[in-house]
Amino acid sequence: MSVNKQLVLDSRPAEKVAPAHFRLVEAPMPKPGPGEILVRNHFLSLDPYMRSRLSDAKSYAKPQEIGAVMGGGTVGEVVESNNPRFKTGDFVVGMGGWQQYFVTDGAGFNVVDAKAIPLQAYLGVVGLPGVTAWYGLNKIIAPKPGETVVVSAASGAVGSVVGQLAKIAGAKVVGIAGGPEKCAYVRDELGFDACVDHKSPRFAEEMKAALPNGLDGLFENVGGEPFAQCLRRLNDFARLAICGLIASYEGAPTILPDMRIFLVRRIKIEGFIVADHLPLWPLALRELASQVASGRLRYRETVRQGLESAPQALVDLLQGGNFGKMLVKLV
Amino acid sequence: MSVNKQLVLDSRPAEKVAPAHFRLVEAPMPKPGPGEILVRNHFLSLDPYMRSRLSDAKSYAKPQEIGAVMGGGTVGEVVESNNPRFKTGDFVVGMGGWQQYFVTDGAGFNVVDAKAIPLQAYLGVVGLPGVTAWYGLNKIIAPKPGETVVVSAASGAVGSVVGQLAKIAGAKVVGIAGGPEKCAYVRDELGFDACVDHKSPRFAEEMKAALPNGLDGLFENVGGEPFAQCLRRLNDFARLAICGLIASYEGAPTILPDMRIFLVRRIKIEGFIVADHLPLWPLALRELASQVASGRLRYRETVRQGLESAPQALVDLLQGGNFGKMLVKLV
Repeated sequence: MSVNKQLVLDSRPAEKVAPAHFRLVEAPMPKPGPGEILVRNHFLSLDPYMRSRLSDAKSYAKPQEIGAVMGGGTVGEVVESNNPRFKTGDFVVGMGGWQQYFVTDGAGFNVVDAKAIPLQAYLGVVGLPGVTAWYGLNKIIAPKPGETVVVSAASGAVGSVVGQLAKIAGAKVVGIAGGPEKCAYVRDELGFDACVDHKSPRFAEEMKAALPNGLDGLFENVGGEPFAQCLRRLNDFARLAICGLIASYEGAPTILPDMRIFLVRRIKIEGFIVADHLPLWPLALRELASQVASGRLRYRETVRQGLESAPQALVDLLQGGNFGKMLVKLV
Repeated sequence: MSVNKQLVLDSRPAEKVAPAHFRLVEAPMPKPGPGEILVRNHFLSLDPYMRSRLSDAKSYAKPQEIGAVMGGGTVGEVVESNNPRFKTGDFVVGMGGWQQYFVTDGAGFNVVDAKAIPLQAYLGVVGLPGVTAWYGLNKIIAPKPGETVVVSAASGAVGSVVGQLAKIAGAKVVGIAGGPEKCAYVRDELGFDACVDHKSPRFAEEMKAALPNGLDGLFENVGGEPFAQCLRRLNDFARLAICGLIASYEGAPTILPDMRIFLVRRIKIEGFIVADHLPLWPLALRELASQVASGRLRYRETVRQGLESAPQALVDLLQGGNFGKMLVKLV
C-alpha cells in the first residue's frame, strides 16, 4: 500500500476528448501532516463541466493544469486523521480528484451521513447535480402549478431532479432524452408527463405534440437542435435557465437566431453556475436529502469500476453514453 | 370646421415603410354622444413600436388594420364634453390616433396638468418612453453605484431617460448614438460619461476604449452591430434589458452567435414591454415628473408640423433621422 495511483491531464484536447489525453501515474502514498487527514476515495463524480476545464479558453471553470491530478468531486473515507474536525471512518465529500488517496487540511470537505442515504448520492441527487437542479428550477424558472416545464438531458443527474422537483411543484413536465430506453425511464419511473426522444427522425413533430400548450419554463442542459425546437414553442413570459450546452462543448455553437423573440414573447434567459450561490447550498441539500429519504426523489446511476476507467467514462458522459449519474467506483 | 382629417393605413409595407403606405382622408366632424367627449389632438407621438403594428406577423403589438385610422399616442384638448370626468379645456393623453379630432367615452384617457410641465412631455419623458426607460433600468438592470451601464439610441426618447436615471443611481453611463452631433448632446447636455458613434469607422475600437472595465448593464434599443460589440464587453452577471431592436425591424435579424456566453458570464437577458406592467405606471410617472420639474431630467424633441407630415416622420424615426422624441404638432 505504498503506492497512490493518480490520473493526470497529459495534453489538452483540440476538439473531442479521448482517454489518451490522460496519463496514469504512480505516486508515493501521501502522509498527513499536522492538522491534515488522509482520505481514500470511494467514488469519483463525472460531470459535464469537466470538459470546459480541459480547455484553456476563457470559461467559468478555471483550466485544469497539464501534469496535475485531474480535479473532480469525490466521496471517500478518512483513513488517518490529525484534524479534530474528522475522525477515522468518517465519510467526506469534496473535490478529491482522480486518485486513490489524497491528503487535505479539510477545507472544502464535509462529513456526510452514509447511513441515511447511499454514499454516492452525495455526488449526485444530494450533491452538485441536485443543487444545480434545485437552483435553476426554483430561482430562475419558479414554475407555477399548471405551467409546462421542459428539461433536456432528462434522464441525467441534473435533468432527472429538475423534472421531479417540477412535478412536486405542480407543473406539467416534458423531458427530452436520447433513445427510447431513457425516455421510458423518464416517463415510467420518474413520472414525467411525457418524454421526447431527440434521436427520433420525427423529433420536431413529437415536440409539437408533447407541448400542445407551449412551454413556460425550460431547463437547458444540451443546446443544439432540442433547444432550437424549444424556442419555437415558448409561451409569453417563459423563463429559460441555461445550465449547460453539452451539444456545443465539442461541436457547433448553439445560436439564438433572432433576438426579436425577447420582444414578441417577453422571455427571460439566465445562465447560472451553482458555485456562485454557495449560501443556498445548505437549504437545497436539506430539501433534496429529505425528498430522497422519503422516496419521492428517484435517481439512477451508471457506475464504472476502477480509477483507470475514469477517462473513458468522461468521454461516454459527453456523448450521452451514461444513464443517470456517471460515477467511477474505486473501492 | 365640419371636416376631420385622418391618416389611414392603405397597405402593409413588405420591408421598408414609406409615406405611400398611408392615405389622407377627410371624414365628417364626429359628434360626442351621451357620456362621450370630443378631443382635438395637439401632438401625435411617433414611436418605434409602430413599425411592428404595420406588419401582420406575430408580435407583441396587434396589427394595425388596413383602412382604419393609424393608432398612436396623442395629447389633446377636450373641446366638448358629455362626461363628468372631463371638462372643456382639459388636456388628455391616450391613444387618439393620427387624426385631428376624435370622440371617446374616456376609457384609457387621463387628464394631465399642462402647467407643471410642457404638454408634449406627456408623450415622452413623462409618458410611454419615460416609463419604458424607468422599467427596464430599475426592474431588469437595477444598476449598483459604480457599475457601468450602456444604452443604445442614447439620444432618443427612451435612451436619454435611461442614461440620466442610471447616472442618478450612481452608475457610469456610456451611450451609443448615430453621429457626432447626437454624441456631443448625450455627453455634454445629458451628462453621460461617454458616447460612442456607431457610424464611426473605428466603432469597435471606440467601444473598447469607452468600456475599460466592461459593462454590467445594457439597455438595448437597436440590435445589430452595436449589440454585437456590447456582447464582447460583458462582465460576469451582466443584465441585458431588451427594449427594442430597431435595426432589425426593417433589416437582418439580430442573432446571439453563441449561447455559451450565458454560462461563461452568467448573464441574464430579459425582453419587456411596458404595457405588461401597468400597475407600476403611476409610481414611474410620479418619479419622472418630479425629476423633470426639478430640472434633473432633460430631453429634446424633433417636432414636425401638420398631420400630413406624420408618415414621413415615422420613416425618419425608423432611420434615426430624429433627435430626441419625435412628435407631430397639429395645433
